[in-house]
Amino acid sequence: MKTKISISKSITSLLLLILINTGVVYAQTSTDISHEDALKAVLAAKEKAEQLDVLVNIAVVDAGANLKAFIRMDDSFLGSIDVAIKKAKTSRYFDINTGDLGKLTQPGGIIYNIELSNDGLVTFPGGVPIKNENGKIIGAIGVSGGTIEQDHDIASVGANAIIE
Amino acid sequence: MKTKISISKSITSLLLLILINTGVVYAQTSTDISHEDALKAVLAAKEKAEQLDVLVNIAVVDAGANLKAFIRMDDSFLGSIDVAIKKAKTSRYFDINTGDLGKLTQPGGIIYNIELSNDGLVTFPGGVPIKNENGKIIGAIGVSGGTIEQDHDIASVGANAIIE
Amino acid sequence: MKTKISISKSITSLLLLILINTGVVYAQTSTDISHEDALKAVLAAKEKAEQLDVLVNIAVVDAGANLKAFIRMDDSFLGSIDVAIKKAKTSRYFDINTGDLGKLTQPGGIIYNIELSNDGLVTFPGGVPIKNENGKIIGAIGVSGGTIEQDHDIASVGANAIIE
Amino acid sequence: MKTKISISKSITSLLLLILINTGVVYAQTSTDISHEDALKAVLAAKEKAEQLDVLVNIAVVDAGANLKAFIRMDDSFLGSIDVAIKKAKTSRYFDINTGDLGKLTQPGGIIYNIELSNDGLVTFPGGVPIKNENGKIIGAIGVSGGTIEQDHDIASVGANAIIE
Repeated sequence: MKTKISISKSITSLLLLILINTGVVYAQTSTDISHEDALKAVLAAKEKAEQLDVLVNIAVVDAGANLKAFIRMDDSFLGSIDVAIKKAKTSRYFDINTGDLGKLTQPGGIIYNIELSNDGLVTFPGGVPIKNENGKIIGAIGVSGGTIEQDHDIASVGANAIIE
Repeated sequence: MKTKISISKSITSLLLLILINTGVVYAQTSTDISHEDALKAVLAAKEKAEQLDVLVNIAVVDAGANLKAFIRMDDSFLGSIDVAIKKAKTSRYFDINTGDLGKLTQPGGIIYNIELSNDGLVTFPGGVPIKNENGKIIGAIGVSGGTIEQDHDIASVGANAIIE
Repeated sequence: MKTKISISKSITSLLLLILINTGVVYAQTSTDISHEDALKAVLAAKEKAEQLDVLVNIAVVDAGANLKAFIRMDDSFLGSIDVAIKKAKTSRYFDINTGDLGKLTQPGGIIYNIELSNDGLVTFPGGVPIKNENGKIIGAIGVSGGTIEQDHDIASVGANAIIE
Repeated sequence: MKTKISISKSITSLLLLILINTGVVYAQTSTDISHEDALKAVLAAKEKAEQLDVLVNIAVVDAGANLKAFIRMDDSFLGSIDVAIKKAKTSRYFDINTGDLGKLTQPGGIIYNIELSNDGLVTFPGGVPIKNENGKIIGAIGVSGGTIEQDHDIASVGANAIIE
């Protein structure tokens, strides 16, 4: 959405304040992640990965679970390309941290082997929903390449980056 | 990995020999695109798309034709996600602009229906090999969402961005 | 990788420039298996299989996890064609012996059901990374047809053959 | 089929000679290519490619159209892995040179778009049936990476290598 505003300087600030507080015209009310935010999430996650000294693949999907942004760090696992994307998709498919889903998919679990649906889910940690300031899920991020704890932490940093 | 070397004249030649044999200083011989360059190519292509006022998906694959970086502009075609990725892969699979390949795949063409191989190729314009300063192909970029001329131009800008 | 070199001697810089520009000495930095080495690995593995009196399929993938060489021994399992290739790919996808990966993918394991990613992984023994003399992974070998212990041993012989 | 032979000793030797020359009763009448012959075909094709100074992928399938041997020359097209394998399979699926099949699959052709069957056929030149000394088809070879004329010539050299 593009907004073109041309008004006298004196009332602009006031108007702007009202608009922000009512949330009428602004990005933060979007229910789909923008590519700018997707990129911001990817880069924040990458920075976190560099701090942890771990090589990862990072994928962001939008509200429709379609790929929005992706980056693979040099020398990270080739197999993590697909795992990162599947983590992001899985997280958005069911609006859940992938690790939480995995607790239910084990033998005897209530959704045993759901991984076989949707052309393959990934249900261990590293996929995290992305929410806007209002708590609305607008996409998801998936990270693969480190330990499952690292992947989850990196994904969380990415998810949080767009509301900070 | 960062290496900082500061040494006296007398042992330089010897050191050089050691470096050659241990392979420490060869970064510039890399024949695979880095994620920094992949991101640079994606962002340069995106900037070009914005100048042309067209919404596209942009994918970069590495020397092994594996996804390295991706971004989808807001409101661009959902169907272009896969087309952009397949253009990038096709370009690297055969080290060619996808549009040039397409001239050979038409009915009566010498490689008619090659699109059915490799899990689906895309052989119209928008995929361009990425070369390093020495002309060595190190990856490829695929763009989808505009006209085929726009897609090709945007991809070319992305491919050239890393050697400018 | 970033390299910062600070050397006093004028002749050295010149030499270095020549080396960089001619690219003469950089062949050994190749990080991808050659077809000669891939064939050597396959034939060494086949010889080992004959010694063990077991019929196997043997696949070698390159650094990009793309098929480089393959042979199927007479009367070996037809189903082992795909298993051998997937073992090689899995090993390179995650730079690991496939059997070691399999320890983590069991029910309750930290990466349960990861086999469903990447169009199907194989996570029992028989896939082994191939390294060059410097320990850099340049590909992988996958063997299928014998017991998992035999498959692993045969793959290891193949992987080691190129550095002996 | 059972054959009961009861004849005087004097003509047995003569009969045996005839049988040998017609190839009726012997091991070399195998109707499936051995891995030794598959490898021989691959290496003969590779040698021909080197003479022509062209980089190709070479695949051999057996009588069951299952992959038997494969090699990818360094720096040959990544996309030719699948094309070479599909050429070999296509050739054996229909016991025909792939180029001959392609004449029938064009728009208006009698088997238009048959390429969509069998998970993807390749119907331009480069796939050639492999026959034993008796003219029985025992497999096929597929070559991809050069011009279609080169691919066909290289494949033919490989196919002929096992009966020379």
